[in-house]
Amino acid sequence: MSINRHMYQLGAKRNIMREIFEYGKKRAEIVGPENVLDFSLGNPSVPPPAKVNDTIRAVLSGPLSDSVHAYTSAQGDAEVRAALAASLRRRFGAKCGPEHLYLTVGAAAALCSCLFGLACPGDEFIVIVPYFTEYKVFIDGTGAATVEVPAKEGTFDLDLEALDQAINRHTKGIILNSPNNPSGVVYPAETLTALGDLLRRKSAQFADPIYLISDEPYREVVYEGVTVPWIPAYYENTLVCYSYSKCLSLPGERIGYVLVPPSMEDHQTVYAAVGGAGRSLGYINAPSLFQHVAAACDGETADLSVYQTNRNLLYEGLTGMGYTCVRPDGTFYLMVKAPEPDAEAFCRRAMARDLLLAPTDTFGLPGYVRIAFCVDTEKVRKALPVFRELAEEYGL
Amino acid sequence: MSINRHMYQLGAKRNIMREIFEYGKKRAEIVGPENVLDFSLGNPSVPPPAKVNDTIRAVLSGPLSDSVHAYTSAQGDAEVRAALAASLRRRFGAKCGPEHLYLTVGAAAALCSCLFGLACPGDEFIVIVPYFTEYKVFIDGTGAATVEVPAKEGTFDLDLEALDQAINRHTKGIILNSPNNPSGVVYPAETLTALGDLLRRKSAQFADPIYLISDEPYREVVYEGVTVPWIPAYYENTLVCYSYSKCLSLPGERIGYVLVPPSMEDHQTVYAAVGGAGRSLGYINAPSLFQHVAAACDGETADLSVYQTNRNLLYEGLTGMGYTCVRPDGTFYLMVKAPEPDAEAFCRRAMARDLLLAPTDTFGLPGYVRIAFCVDTEKVRKALPVFRELAEEYGL
Repeated sequence: MSINRHMYQLGAKRNIMREIFEYGKKRAEIVGPENVLDFSLGNPSVPPPAKVNDTIRAVLSGPLSDSVHAYTSAQGDAEVRAALAASLRRRFGAKCGPEHLYLTVGAAAALCSCLFGLACPGDEFIVIVPYFTEYKVFIDGTGAATVEVPAKEGTFDLDLEALDQAINRHTKGIILNSPNNPSGVVYPAETLTALGDLLRRKSAQFADPIYLISDEPYREVVYEGVTVPWIPAYYENTLVCYSYSKCLSLPGERIGYVLVPPSMEDHQTVYAAVGGAGRSLGYINAPSLFQHVAAACDGETADLSVYQTNRNLLYEGLTGMGYTCVRPDGTFYLMVKAPEPDAEAFCRRAMARDLLLAPTDTFGLPGYVRIAFCVDTEKVRKALPVFRELAEEYGL
Repeated sequence: MSINRHMYQLGAKRNIMREIFEYGKKRAEIVGPENVLDFSLGNPSVPPPAKVNDTIRAVLSGPLSDSVHAYTSAQGDAEVRAALAASLRRRFGAKCGPEHLYLTVGAAAALCSCLFGLACPGDEFIVIVPYFTEYKVFIDGTGAATVEVPAKEGTFDLDLEALDQAINRHTKGIILNSPNNPSGVVYPAETLTALGDLLRRKSAQFADPIYLISDEPYREVVYEGVTVPWIPAYYENTLVCYSYSKCLSLPGERIGYVLVPPSMEDHQTVYAAVGGAGRSLGYINAPSLFQHVAAACDGETADLSVYQTNRNLLYEGLTGMGYTCVRPDGTFYLMVKAPEPDAEAFCRRAMARDLLLAPTDTFGLPGYVRIAFCVDTEKVRKALPVFRELAEEYGL
C-alpha cells in the first residue's frame, strides 16, 4: 500500500471518545437508548435555544432567502463579522473590529488555521496535561512538536514553574483551554496575570513572540456565576479560537472563529497567515447560513440548568461514595480518579454495565476518567447506583 | 516575524479570483451592482431549487428539529450516506454502499482529505493545464510536487501521450476535473477508456496504484443533453470528490463527499486514510443540517436554463466578434483567448470598463481569460457591447 501511513493510522484508530460513542449507538439498538448510560462524548444534550432555529427560519423567509447560501468572503460575511466584533466589544471590552475576525468551520478549524499559520520547522507547541486529544493530532499535522506540561495535581490550575522550565527558543505557542476539557477548571485571573508576565519575559528573552492560542468553546458553559476572564486582556499575543458548538448546542454545524486582536504585534501579518492556512487546508468559508446564526445568537446559550443539576448530583454523589473528583467550575465534564491505576480497565468494568466513560489516557494523563454529563438527568440518576456498585467492588 | 511565511503568502496574496470578487463588491457600492459586469467568480447566480429551503424547513419542524445540529459520525450520518449511496447506484449504476462515502465540508475538503490521505514523501500529483488554481495550493500543503501536464490545445481534451510521458514511479495520482473548470470541456468516454488503460499499465509497471482523483462539482451542470461519463466505471482506482455547491447553488454551505468505491484495491485502507486526513485537518464532520439537504436533493439541480442562454449568447457573440473560444459542454465557464499575449493586461482594460474577467495565468495557462457566466442574462447583454469595443480596440 502506498497511502500515507500516518493518516491511515489516524483514520483506522480513530479518536477513542468517538469509538465509545459509536459503540454506544450500536449498543442502544440492542438494549434501548434509555439503557445506555453514555457519558463518553461532549455532545450537548440540551436543545439549541429557540433563537437558533428561529434565526434560520427568518433568514430563509427574508431578503437573504436565496443569497444566504452563496460564497462569502473567505474571512466570513462582513456584516456578520461586524456584528460579532460589536458583541465582543460589548461583552468583554475587547478591542476589535470585523477585520480581526476570521470565521471558521468550528473550533477545530480555528485551531488548525492558527497552528498551521504559525508553525515553522523545528517549532514546539506546549499543551497543558490533561489536554483535548486532538491538539496533538493537529500539532502533528504541522510538523511541529507537542510538549506536554502537566497542570498542578489536585487543582489542575496552570503550573507556572513547570511552564517556565518548558519554554525555550523553539516554543512557538501554548494552547490554553479554559474552561478546561477534561478537568472543568477555569483558570483564575491571578494565574493569567502571572502567565502573561511569564510569556512577556520569555518572548523578550528569545526576541520572538510566544503566542497564546486560547481554545474557548466552553466560555459560556460555567456554573453559579463563575466568570471566565477574557484572556487577551492578560496577554496581548493571544489568538482566541471560539466555537458555538457547546454554548448553542450545535456541534454538528461547525461554526466558530479566530480572533487576532489588534493588541498583538504584527497582528495583520498573523491574521494573513491564519487565513492562508485556512485556505491551504481547504476551508473556503465558514458555513454561510450558520454565520448568520452566530451573528444573531452570539452571547446566548442553550438552557444550561440541566448541566448544573447534573454536575451537583455527580460531584456530590461520587465524592460521597469515596471517589476523588475535581469540582468543575465550567464545561460539562467531571474528572474522576479511577479506583485502580489502569483507568481503561475501570472503563471496561463500567462498560460491562452499559456505563460509558472515557479514560483520560488519551488526554495525556493516565489514571482518571472523564464523565461528560451533557445527558438527561435521568441518566445521571440511573448511573449513580452503577458508580456505587463499582465503588463497592473496588472497596472505596 | 516568526509565523509561517508560506501560509502568510497564501493569506496575503489570496486567490486572484477572490481578489477580483472583492474588488467588484467594493466597486458595486460606488457605481451600483447592476453596473459591475462581474464574470470573475464561479458563484452560482440562480437560486437553489425550492427543495433546498423546503428540506431545511421540514427538518426543523420534524422529529430531527433539535438533534439535527448535533455531531454526526465523522464520516457523516449513516442514514444520509445510505440515501446518497442509493442515489449513486440508481443514477450511475455505481457499486457502492454507505460505508464507501465520507461526507465533507465541500469539494475542497474532499480534495484535501484525499491528497493528504495519499501523499507520501517524494510523491507527485499530476494536474491537467489549465487547472483550478487551488489544486496546487492543496498539493503543496501535503509536501508533494505538482506536475503540470497540458491539455490538448484547441480542444482541451486530455493529452494521453503527454500523460504517458509524465507518469513515473513517483506519480501518486492525477486530479481530473470534468466538466472542466476553466475550459468547460467534458472528457468523452473514449478518452476515459484510453486513460484507464494507460493508468492500469503504469500502475502495473511501477507495482503501485496510480489514483485518479475525480473532482466533480460540475457533474450536473451540462448543456443540451451532454452526458458526463461516470469515471469509476472507466478506472477502478478512482476517488470521486463531489460538491453540491454548483448544482444546488449553495457554495457557501460547504457540503460534499468523497466516494472510495469498493472496486478500488485496498479500498478500506484508502477510506481510512482519507478519514484520517480529514481528522488531521480539523474536519470533525460535514455540516449536519446540510447533510440532510444533500440526502434529499441529490441528483436535483437549480434551474440551469439561464446558464444555457448565457453560454449561447456569449459563445455566439464572442466568436462572431472574432474572439477565439472553446465551446463549453458543461460548467458555467467560457475560456477565451486574450487578444494580446498578456491576458492580465487585457483583463485590466476590461476592468477599466467595469467588466471583470479572470486571467487564466493562475490556472497555469497564460494568454486566456475565463468568463464565469453564472450571472443574470441582462449582464451578458450589457457585456457584449463592451467585448465588442475591446475587439475593435484590438483590431480583431
